[in-house]
Amino acid sequence: MSLEQYFDGFTRRDWEVCTDEPPVRFAMVGLGWWTREEAIPAVESADFCETTVVVSGDSEKAERVAAGTATVEAAVTYEEFHAGVAADAYDAVYVCTPNATHPEHVVAAADLGKAVLCEKPMAATSEGAERMVEACADRGVPLAIAYRMQTEPAVRRARDLVADGAVGEPIHAHGHMADDLLEFVPDRDQWRLDPSLSGGTTMNDIGIYPLNTTRFVLDADPVAVYATTTSVSEAFAGVDEHVAFQVEFPGNVTAVCTASHNAHRSSYLEVVGSEGRVRVEPAFFPWDDRGLVVEVGDVGGEFEFEQVDQMTEEFDHFANCLQRGVDPHPDGRHGLVDIEALEALYESAETGRRVAL
Amino acid sequence: MSLEQYFDGFTRRDWEVCTDEPPVRFAMVGLGWWTREEAIPAVESADFCETTVVVSGDSEKAERVAAGTATVEAAVTYEEFHAGVAADAYDAVYVCTPNATHPEHVVAAADLGKAVLCEKPMAATSEGAERMVEACADRGVPLAIAYRMQTEPAVRRARDLVADGAVGEPIHAHGHMADDLLEFVPDRDQWRLDPSLSGGTTMNDIGIYPLNTTRFVLDADPVAVYATTTSVSEAFAGVDEHVAFQVEFPGNVTAVCTASHNAHRSSYLEVVGSEGRVRVEPAFFPWDDRGLVVEVGDVGGEFEFEQVDQMTEEFDHFANCLQRGVDPHPDGRHGLVDIEALEALYESAETGRRVAL
Repeated sequence: MSLEQYFDGFTRRDWEVCTDEPPVRFAMVGLGWWTREEAIPAVESADFCETTVVVSGDSEKAERVAAGTATVEAAVTYEEFHAGVAADAYDAVYVCTPNATHPEHVVAAADLGKAVLCEKPMAATSEGAERMVEACADRGVPLAIAYRMQTEPAVRRARDLVADGAVGEPIHAHGHMADDLLEFVPDRDQWRLDPSLSGGTTMNDIGIYPLNTTRFVLDADPVAVYATTTSVSEAFAGVDEHVAFQVEFPGNVTAVCTASHNAHRSSYLEVVGSEGRVRVEPAFFPWDDRGLVVEVGDVGGEFEFEQVDQMTEEFDHFANCLQRGVDPHPDGRHGLVDIEALEALYESAETGRRVAL
Repeated sequence: MSLEQYFDGFTRRDWEVCTDEPPVRFAMVGLGWWTREEAIPAVESADFCETTVVVSGDSEKAERVAAGTATVEAAVTYEEFHAGVAADAYDAVYVCTPNATHPEHVVAAADLGKAVLCEKPMAATSEGAERMVEACADRGVPLAIAYRMQTEPAVRRARDLVADGAVGEPIHAHGHMADDLLEFVPDRDQWRLDPSLSGGTTMNDIGIYPLNTTRFVLDADPVAVYATTTSVSEAFAGVDEHVAFQVEFPGNVTAVCTASHNAHRSSYLEVVGSEGRVRVEPAFFPWDDRGLVVEVGDVGGEFEFEQVDQMTEEFDHFANCLQRGVDPHPDGRHGLVDIEALEALYESAETGRRVAL
């Protein structure tokens, strides 16, 4: 296939199948800035889903968000949600709360028989993640993890190229994500800086982007990891501010990655193979336009393409899977692999040793 | 200083000082393809030096190269060179032989009182490198290592930006160099694939580019390293074909790097700081035009500039230092830091542990 053919219909939804099913009705669990400013607007633009219930620990906030969202029928507290209040008004839940509280909300949703789309990382510990996977399996409820990069067209085209051998045998991957957390969320008491709520700061929150996206593009899971973490600024005392890590994949493929929650905003993902390379840059922020550079032998260039709303793609993908009666992916077991890798990365940073998975 | 001011006179020789001294006369020791196709032509284009003697193990090859180079006065064997034959015809030596043989030629040059420019890595072992440093110090002879990236204008401007804080506090560096050694030098018996002659294959031969150039741009030396090495193809059995490594620098700066002698040709070096980033891409091959991307806060772009012959810059820099009576840099002790880091990287790859330096 020529490079041009890969990029015909660059932003095509290669996962979408038409159905006559009605839209999937979402309960939004957790009404922080990401849900309010990214998720709810994305669902408003979506084809296959709508927001009908909002859930918060703060009932006034829930009422306020409900009042600003035309499709919402009910605003409930976490306790009411767990008790099944307004359960007839939604089909699925989107969980976007501090990582450590994901399991309680996901288990509650499973008990109510609701499909789950849970933010990444799926939990603060592998024990919590396993509990979520088991609860959803026991109740026969689909559990998907909200890796928005997996429905990003630039990333999907990169994965196609790698899968078809366009860059030859993959050899190295390079990933990087950095931002200024405290400029973005100017609150030193935020849960991302509290390991008991987050499970870890920079590695867990944004190191997971190069980690998971490399897994997706290579279609492979890690076999060993190594990491260093550093904490320099007072605001990041006791948590990982800057991280650097290596991830070994089967077949002698190695990824080298960095992430920082206190650096110049920048991000990219690259795979170098025996015959070429593919690079997504910027890669990981929904606010930046994504770019794609491809080289195959002596031929190559930077491709221009229409940008999509990653969150709309993610919600529509999940909803369309439910409409078709197929289990949405990436599933809970896929998410658990990241949690185990993240725990191994932190263990490596403590011990200075490679950790096999 | 504005970004534009950094790039006024981008390729300026910030190291050059006018003198009335005559050109430095070089003996070229080792007449492999790099010396014949890169070094001798570079010196022919240089302002401050010329090739007057050629030295090879193969006297016919030496005669042939001499016949093709107008300035050459004598062609001698290694034995003749060690015995001081034609020593009046040159002021300095350029050593470009298999790494393990650098010490014998450098010690011979020092005994003859000749200044030395030795290819990287300076030796196959730290023991050999130390012997070279001691011999040159004992005889009061300047010893420089031929890191051509250190006189590359794109790299020097990147270093200026970092030194002046334009990207804020450096946090992460990313480096990569890959090529297809056997396509370039189609000989399975070549010395680069023989650890007893090279000291190591990919890490020593090209991993040293991101390693040393990161040191130069950050103006810092490594404090700890970690590496993985893999060998996949039959031609690379028993040696490091692909490598991935981390280098920790003082002040919580970490570099993540990859290199391969059997991959798609590609190279780059990037530094991400608290306020911006600077990226040289392509970076490390003299055949590729170098490029420079700079971002400072929300301002940034890709700078176009005139390309220079890196080897001419390197030879002229070394020669101009000798003309001015100053010790040329990077010196042997600087090169020894790399050899110790390379040995630690291989040790880490063996043990799966971080190695402190």
